[in-house]
Amino acid sequence: MAGPRPKVVHYSRVPAEPAGDGASIRWLINEQDDGAPHFLMRLIEVAPGGNTPQHTHPYEHENFVVEGQGKVLLENQWYDIGPGEVIFVPAGTLHQYVNSGKGTLRFLCAIPAKKYQS
Amino acid sequence: MAGPRPKVVHYSRVPAEPAGDGASIRWLINEQDDGAPHFLMRLIEVAPGGNTPQHTHPYEHENFVVEGQGKVLLENQWYDIGPGEVIFVPAGTLHQYVNSGKGTLRFLCAIPAKKYQS
Repeated sequence: MAGPRPKVVHYSRVPAEPAGDGASIRWLINEQDDGAPHFLMRLIEVAPGGNTPQHTHPYEHENFVVEGQGKVLLENQWYDIGPGEVIFVPAGTLHQYVNSGKGTLRFLCAIPAKKYQS
Repeated sequence: MAGPRPKVVHYSRVPAEPAGDGASIRWLINEQDDGAPHFLMRLIEVAPGGNTPQHTHPYEHENFVVEGQGKVLLENQWYDIGPGEVIFVPAGTLHQYVNSGKGTLRFLCAIPAKKYQS
């Protein structure tokens, strides 16, 4: 793991990897390249009609919607989301994100570093 | 501290507190109310001509610019920032944010939870 070093980068310059049905993920600040010690910042992009997996895991998400319109499932309830919306998904909460709009749904999704994920 | 529970809220509904010269902070996801276990999400807003303090501390920032134009100091170098820019400020890095635009500069600023700040 590289030592932590400052960086400034536009999200569009960070590669996008597949992450679900019409979804992709950019690891904006990670452990491998940046040496982020406690938590990691990712940008999730979901195409119109696409979604992230409906799942649960033993660590939390902290989300912020940057662009687009969608819905988020938290346990058994759906919430409409748009730009500026903040979503906290505690560990163990069933969740899924769906793009219900006409443009790309973009949201930040921060998670704890690997050592805190179990 | 309350137990972690899911939430969805627009940032504008979270109160803004003073945080520097023309700057304010909204604690979007915190320990006290949300029981966030590892890291906390805040939104910093800086008025035109305003700035955050120039300082350093023993924990990292992970930032994402939501809106506006500005500059960030990292050690001895200034970088121009605008919407979509990602900034990683490792622990111990001298830093400051300045609004150099005509509108409000809004950026997310995530930090580790208190127990990981020293």
